[in-house]
Amino acid sequence: MLAVFGHTNPDTDAITSALVYARLLTRQGVEARAYRLGELNFETPFVLREAGVDVPDLLPTLEAGAAVALVDHNESAQSVPNLTELTVMRVVDHHKLGDLTTAQPPYLRFEPVGSTGTLLLKLHREAGLPVERADARLMLSAILSDTLHFRSPTTTPDDREAVAFLAPVAEVADVEAYALAMFAAKSDLGDTPAETLLRMDYKVFPFGDPTRPQSVQQWGLGVIETTNPGYVLGRQAELLAAMDRVRAEDGLNGVLLSVVDILNETNRTLVLSATEEKVLREAFGVEMAGGLADLGGRISRKKQIVPTLEAYFTPTA
Amino acid sequence: MLAVFGHTNPDTDAITSALVYARLLTRQGVEARAYRLGELNFETPFVLREAGVDVPDLLPTLEAGAAVALVDHNESAQSVPNLTELTVMRVVDHHKLGDLTTAQPPYLRFEPVGSTGTLLLKLHREAGLPVERADARLMLSAILSDTLHFRSPTTTPDDREAVAFLAPVAEVADVEAYALAMFAAKSDLGDTPAETLLRMDYKVFPFGDPTRPQSVQQWGLGVIETTNPGYVLGRQAELLAAMDRVRAEDGLNGVLLSVVDILNETNRTLVLSATEEKVLREAFGVEMAGGLADLGGRISRKKQIVPTLEAYFTPTA
Repeated sequence: MLAVFGHTNPDTDAITSALVYARLLTRQGVEARAYRLGELNFETPFVLREAGVDVPDLLPTLEAGAAVALVDHNESAQSVPNLTELTVMRVVDHHKLGDLTTAQPPYLRFEPVGSTGTLLLKLHREAGLPVERADARLMLSAILSDTLHFRSPTTTPDDREAVAFLAPVAEVADVEAYALAMFAAKSDLGDTPAETLLRMDYKVFPFGDPTRPQSVQQWGLGVIETTNPGYVLGRQAELLAAMDRVRAEDGLNGVLLSVVDILNETNRTLVLSATEEKVLREAFGVEMAGGLADLGGRISRKKQIVPTLEAYFTPTA
Repeated sequence: MLAVFGHTNPDTDAITSALVYARLLTRQGVEARAYRLGELNFETPFVLREAGVDVPDLLPTLEAGAAVALVDHNESAQSVPNLTELTVMRVVDHHKLGDLTTAQPPYLRFEPVGSTGTLLLKLHREAGLPVERADARLMLSAILSDTLHFRSPTTTPDDREAVAFLAPVAEVADVEAYALAMFAAKSDLGDTPAETLLRMDYKVFPFGDPTRPQSVQQWGLGVIETTNPGYVLGRQAELLAAMDRVRAEDGLNGVLLSVVDILNETNRTLVLSATEEKVLREAFGVEMAGGLADLGGRISRKKQIVPTLEAYFTPTA
């Protein structure tokens, strides 16, 4: 049985891609089951409910050598703690290739598209398998979620084409209204503790030259995508205290939390300390005021934040 | 312009896959050009001549940041020396995933099939592009070469299906006769210097745990696939002297040279010193006589030699 899962702090693409890929593999004769590596954000339960699909179970501890398929991630820092002991058979992803290695030839399908959902639709078509309604709903949601309904610069023509194909199969007549309902669900943060908000869409990246381990810095990069940034920014002090705790607990060099206004396509990033201030100023050339850095239209962590930090910490790369 | 190339000490799959992929990308609107990283073996000129295709140029030195596509390999030890400075945009491969990383999301297409040619046929079909005669001839040759016309345990149903599809397009009426002519060309080694024979199908692998660099051993693994093993074994003393020089020059922990009898599907491996003897005995449990280890039917380096050594040098993996 192949265990299929997305990254820790799962977002909609990570959860739905595990579900859709496990089902596709099962239809192709590969025994597979979807799992999750953490608690859902506020958007994904809405998506699963609309699709009529159950929340996948938390991944149990896997024994060394167990066969796994990764979706929507490939770096060990974003995966199950004992990843290097497991047998990675398959990866479907749209991120940069990190520290993954395999002992045997794997199936890898990476393309620089806006969401893993877009790749999963391609896999259905290449296999000549019709897309079922629930799977269509899940892939459609993943694409709308990851691309912020085409607002993100990660959006590609393949993502737009996939949504056009999937919407009628998913029986979503008004894609814009459905996306807004998803984003509203995601923004309904209630009295969620500040640390939960920070960790909800949060990834740790090693920056620097991996061949010189002493040069490598670990940075935690959180994003809160919301239609209601005022609410999040109103909790700035609480969030900074949570960032400070997480930085210490996780032994990080720095922590950034970006508040992305989905509808207005802006990014204001909370500045924790002089360390983060220096990096934000030097890497992005932005100014800070009131403990916030105005990162303008940089709404994609993957495309507009991580590569800039990568270049900043590894000038020769 | 994307530079497309296969591994050093190129075999037929490495050369033809660079040619076919560069042409496919060009047809898809991506400017690309095929190169090679070394001299051809004795089989590939026969294949190119039959296909009416020119030998690709040697890859010139690329500036840092240059965009490249890798075919039929992904590990830096088998690629251009400054690979880590280049921008790897695409990889099409059927080997285990090694130390490759990227700064941006790449196109990766890996499947555990018998040859890169099989994957390139899939890419044509998925793109809805008809396969042209010369490309069909090149992909067909790559599959027959890498799988030893289905004799190798790396052969998959996809490879057989690809050959069945490609043969009529390539206008190869008798596939078995064509494969035998390829293997005969490959076996016509003439008075080739021993070191050239050793390095013709030769790859360096790091074995051990990469997180503990002091545990890593570098081994050079050469293979001579031939229909005339008697000729090669008749030059045993010369070949051992070449292996000894290469081990010293390249700073290796050990060197193995396997003489694979294509038609009888046997592997006799030259034993250079007590180091190699110990490893062959302990890893494969085989006996040695006359400076030769009888590795029986282990004719695939990728599937039957490398994984065994990997497990031997990294017992916990």
